[in-house]
Amino acid sequence: MKTLKFAVLPGDYIGPEVMSVALDVLKAATEPAGITLDYTEAHVGGAGIDNEGKALPESTIKICEEADAILFGSIGGPKWENLPPAEQPERAALLPIRKHFNLFANLRPGLLYKELTDASPLKTERIPEGIDMVCVRELTGGIYFGPKRTETLPDGDIQATDEMVYKKSEIERILDVAIASAKARSGKICSVDKANVLTTSVLWRKTATEYVAKHAPEIELSHMYVDNAAMQMARDPNQFDVIVTENMFGDIISDEMGIVCGSLGMLSSASLGTGKNKYDLPFGLYEPSGGTAPDIAGKGIANPCAQILSAALMLRYSFGENEIAEKIEKAVKQAVMDGFRTGDISFGKPSIGTKEMAAAIIERL
Amino acid sequence: MKTLKFAVLPGDYIGPEVMSVALDVLKAATEPAGITLDYTEAHVGGAGIDNEGKALPESTIKICEEADAILFGSIGGPKWENLPPAEQPERAALLPIRKHFNLFANLRPGLLYKELTDASPLKTERIPEGIDMVCVRELTGGIYFGPKRTETLPDGDIQATDEMVYKKSEIERILDVAIASAKARSGKICSVDKANVLTTSVLWRKTATEYVAKHAPEIELSHMYVDNAAMQMARDPNQFDVIVTENMFGDIISDEMGIVCGSLGMLSSASLGTGKNKYDLPFGLYEPSGGTAPDIAGKGIANPCAQILSAALMLRYSFGENEIAEKIEKAVKQAVMDGFRTGDISFGKPSIGTKEMAAAIIERL
Ligand SMILES: CC(C)[C@H](C(=O)O)[C@@H](O)C(=O)O
Ligand SMILES: CC(C)[C@H](C(=O)O)[C@@H](O)C(=O)O
Repeated sequence: MKTLKFAVLPGDYIGPEVMSVALDVLKAATEPAGITLDYTEAHVGGAGIDNEGKALPESTIKICEEADAILFGSIGGPKWENLPPAEQPERAALLPIRKHFNLFANLRPGLLYKELTDASPLKTERIPEGIDMVCVRELTGGIYFGPKRTETLPDGDIQATDEMVYKKSEIERILDVAIASAKARSGKICSVDKANVLTTSVLWRKTATEYVAKHAPEIELSHMYVDNAAMQMARDPNQFDVIVTENMFGDIISDEMGIVCGSLGMLSSASLGTGKNKYDLPFGLYEPSGGTAPDIAGKGIANPCAQILSAALMLRYSFGENEIAEKIEKAVKQAVMDGFRTGDISFGKPSIGTKEMAAAIIERL
Repeated sequence: MKTLKFAVLPGDYIGPEVMSVALDVLKAATEPAGITLDYTEAHVGGAGIDNEGKALPESTIKICEEADAILFGSIGGPKWENLPPAEQPERAALLPIRKHFNLFANLRPGLLYKELTDASPLKTERIPEGIDMVCVRELTGGIYFGPKRTETLPDGDIQATDEMVYKKSEIERILDVAIASAKARSGKICSVDKANVLTTSVLWRKTATEYVAKHAPEIELSHMYVDNAAMQMARDPNQFDVIVTENMFGDIISDEMGIVCGSLGMLSSASLGTGKNKYDLPFGLYEPSGGTAPDIAGKGIANPCAQILSAALMLRYSFGENEIAEKIEKAVKQAVMDGFRTGDISFGKPSIGTKEMAAAIIERL
């Protein structure tokens, strides 16, 4: 009998609500295969600050270290928004956890079912079949983690500096992830950079060209400047299949992709580490792309799909349970197609609550 | 009799076509006020490379130096796209010209007439009245012009670095421009940064807060992270009035704004320098936001509105001719409202050519 050992970090506001039902779905999906869930809950984000004085408490890190994957909720919100930007829960938990576990590859499926195109801000005729793409973002390099300094100049002016730094080897390992994604999809990768301005992007583009030619010549690689990518994402998102890009550009472009896909309540993500777990698969952190939705927290009406789909990604990438992952993904899609809708995707029509949504998904497993 | 002395840099592909009719409109609009145009044409971009071996020839710089403003077309295209990114006409002309003339403030009106909402990729019900905002982008600082280096590490890996650098004084002077814009509009500024990650953004946010409180306390200042701004721009652009942001974020966000506003053929821009011309007004460069549209070049069907509106901005900012600028802006709007449309804004209905469009505008001056 296989046991899946993972850490559960529900976080703040709607975090615990959607996490709770996502665990129900996970249990219902794995039990028939004789799989047992062995998970430990821990505080993170605002819950970490309130209960243990830190957005990412040591006790939480320890629980994660002892696990084979992390199922993460959402963190942050108005309660902590008067803290300085760098101490806010999201920032103060996510950046250290990414660095600690070397979570270098962030995968965000940009998925909008045909049935939900009304939720997208884009005109429906531009996305008649919905949207289906993936953004692969480098997550532990670049300007996020390069040296930073602030100094007072001789003339009294103040100067701040952030260094964007990339090594060839860091670019190659994120390309590996993009190549694997592309092979499972259309075989096309669009690498997004700013090679007409940045030296890091010149290295990025050169490395991408050489690496793909050498290791995956069957992949069709194209390059696009980030300003153009921001336009194309809003103009015609389906021209993309797999996007690969550096940390800061990925932060911006993947969020734009998220909104173009309509409800953030439907969008999952996986952040894969360099480390392997006991299944010889990547240790990873799995979380919804959306936030903590403080306005609807406690009402039992949050959309749990993003959290459930994140759990499916965990099964796929960290536990190698592809079939069960697909079963969950299909059940979510079927429930939505059958008209089960939380308020964010009901378009003003009557909607159901978090638990009812999860129940509809479990019935369709 | 007043004489306006400016440099005309038409550039490539549709550049010269739209420039030619923009000059006709400018002449027709200024003549009744007894104003004479004194302009000199010069090569830039691909035309610079082909004719003088450089995207920004010295002779062109000299002509600009002797003028009080630059009316710029568009540059680049397939003919030069096999050059390395850093040598492509746009990059090789725009960056040096910005630096040479200290063009630190890029203003891009994000304007979509109600009549043209079909041209936007956004659902019409999200922008029922069209779009009306301005993006103020810092243009001579940040990661564009900070130190860059590539080195081979002891272990053989290659490492590239770009430094993003901002001085408090650079942030203050772009805030001045944003404040002036906001005063002429709704009095609201949204400053876009990434203060939860970047030291430069921490300085940016602190400077914005202090400077606006001290010098323009009547302005309502808000702050937004760049990833969120990329979402909000596609979700609800009209929540913004004046955006102010640093160079790289402005490159991305203003292009996203451009596409959300529908046809790039309608969008103008002004890049203002620190230097003052003989009218004690900023020396500036005025150019359409769109590109050279190689696919339609030479056919006489390009939309000249962006170039014409850029000329209007030149009248306003560098020559203080506000009334004539407004007259041109109104005539463009009226022509569009009266149904005169080039192909990019005709929505499949019969369309007119570049010259006919300009004629319709001149008739409405
Ligand atoms: C909270 C913030 C530091 C983080 C980032 O910029 O990476 C967030 O926006 C994200 O994308 O996960
Ligand atoms: C051509 C390029 C260097 C330039 C920039 O990034 O500033 C362009 O994209 C622009 O926005 O004017």
